[in-house]
Amino acid sequence: MDRRLKVNASFDLGRWSERHLDNVERALDRWVSVCLPAGIGHGAPAALIDAMRYAVLDGGKRLRPLLLLAARESIVSEVPSSDSAAEPSGYEAALRAACAVELIHAYSLVHDDMPCMDNDVLRRGKPTVHVKFGEARALLAGDALQALAFELLTPDAGMSDVQQARLCRLLARAAGSAGMAGGQAIDLASVGTKLTEDQLREMHRLKTGALLQASVMMGAVFGNVSEMTLDALGRYGAAVGLAFQVVDDILDVTADCATLGKTAGKDASHDKPTYVSVLGLERSTLYAGELLLQALDALDQSDLQETQALRALASIVVNRSS
Amino acid sequence: MDRRLKVNASFDLGRWSERHLDNVERALDRWVSVCLPAGIGHGAPAALIDAMRYAVLDGGKRLRPLLLLAARESIVSEVPSSDSAAEPSGYEAALRAACAVELIHAYSLVHDDMPCMDNDVLRRGKPTVHVKFGEARALLAGDALQALAFELLTPDAGMSDVQQARLCRLLARAAGSAGMAGGQAIDLASVGTKLTEDQLREMHRLKTGALLQASVMMGAVFGNVSEMTLDALGRYGAAVGLAFQVVDDILDVTADCATLGKTAGKDASHDKPTYVSVLGLERSTLYAGELLLQALDALDQSDLQETQALRALASIVVNRSS
Repeated sequence: MDRRLKVNASFDLGRWSERHLDNVERALDRWVSVCLPAGIGHGAPAALIDAMRYAVLDGGKRLRPLLLLAARESIVSEVPSSDSAAEPSGYEAALRAACAVELIHAYSLVHDDMPCMDNDVLRRGKPTVHVKFGEARALLAGDALQALAFELLTPDAGMSDVQQARLCRLLARAAGSAGMAGGQAIDLASVGTKLTEDQLREMHRLKTGALLQASVMMGAVFGNVSEMTLDALGRYGAAVGLAFQVVDDILDVTADCATLGKTAGKDASHDKPTYVSVLGLERSTLYAGELLLQALDALDQSDLQETQALRALASIVVNRSS
Repeated sequence: MDRRLKVNASFDLGRWSERHLDNVERALDRWVSVCLPAGIGHGAPAALIDAMRYAVLDGGKRLRPLLLLAARESIVSEVPSSDSAAEPSGYEAALRAACAVELIHAYSLVHDDMPCMDNDVLRRGKPTVHVKFGEARALLAGDALQALAFELLTPDAGMSDVQQARLCRLLARAAGSAGMAGGQAIDLASVGTKLTEDQLREMHRLKTGALLQASVMMGAVFGNVSEMTLDALGRYGAAVGLAFQVVDDILDVTADCATLGKTAGKDASHDKPTYVSVLGLERSTLYAGELLLQALDALDQSDLQETQALRALASIVVNRSS
């Protein structure tokens, strides 16, 4: 516990986040719009963009973008100024990557909420996309958000080819059948079944962990880092990713809908195996704490200097209330 | 008509296609599998891969892969040997790109067939993916196929960073809201409405044309081509892409289910505007012929030498019966 308190006391995460979140929101607003960068098409149909914007803007904790930007900051000394017009170009490129990860996350929520999946009507305190726009448009909006993520990662200028290729590689692997979509498929098949702790961990490693870990690794694309440091960031990302899901499972039974901004208790009502159903509430809470320590240890074992934001984010993932 | 006949007589498309199709099928079989290239995940859940393989393998004309490989051949003199073990590396990279485009096409069919979209039960003569595996798994399989397309384009080795970045850029733009997904959204909104010919063309340019054109442009990534040639290939791809849809609309009213391998007459029964409903059958047929000539003219105006495969493919798109 000392360590967690130390983490919170030594760094103003709120202030750090505020500046980055402001940039992320403005970037998402700019990039998820009818005026796309020049491409094959002249423009996108407004009705589709409406649903995409609804799915992405005005809501969400933006944990994945913050993890990406924090990972970049841990290896790149250059810090963005508060004047957005003066952002250094490396930061602008990282912002693209941060938004790309968020688009993948947002699309997965849109599809996950659909009637054939979780059939949920509430997300971030608002009606879900298919409730608002109909199922067909929700399906297409999710599909288009996934494509837009890769479009953001491949601009005509402002990002090297090496960076573009690496970022696309990391994101595609984390989003696909050996990552997020694969984890969702296991989740789907596990309804009404009993999983061992190992099976549950594997499911969450893919379903939630892969994209959170990829966010960290994508941040590392913006600097030159040793294999040892990459490995440490990978272990940090894996621990934070799993901790996120353990805490999600805990909050699903302990928090109410108003606090969560989504339907509480839905895992239990869907008869899905969770950390709470497998380990119990107390052991789940202890496990989340252990994972936090694993994440911090990984950073300690690296040669990274600027890890305050990464530490504080790991702490907030475990100690959040929604 | 002389020209079309000349196109068919001067080149054995069947023989050319056979060799490439064999390579495409084997590559898809290898890449859409549980044993994915090493990435974040150790492997993908078999149940999801089953649905993905069902959606992709054993069916489909593979027009997009063939267009990509033909475009590459028009600018790269090197021709693959019939012995697959001896394929030159450039061809292997192009095969990845060819399969990536086909995965995007396959995912769009899976989602398009779902009950909230076209609600179709027959595709390539088999039950559609959601009929066979359920809606939830069909949704996830489509999502995972899109991600896998970008994973195929970003291997650890065998393709330069520049190529990876360019290919991802072209594919993402063609698949997204200013391309295929955008066109599908317009299609969705147009049910029961009357479109002008211009509006219909714009819808199809996005819905079908963008990905067909991108297939051609992605083939051009594998060689050094002049701006003039790129422009010519772009015009060729646009004309072939539109011709494909005009002919699709014609076949929807003139062919039967057994020939098409999918439900015939569904556009009319869904009250969707088509070229036949806007122009009539006779003018639609003439228009398809005009588009073929436009495609061939574009090639004539380029400095490309080896255009026989591209010519023959354009011809077959217009003169096919299914």
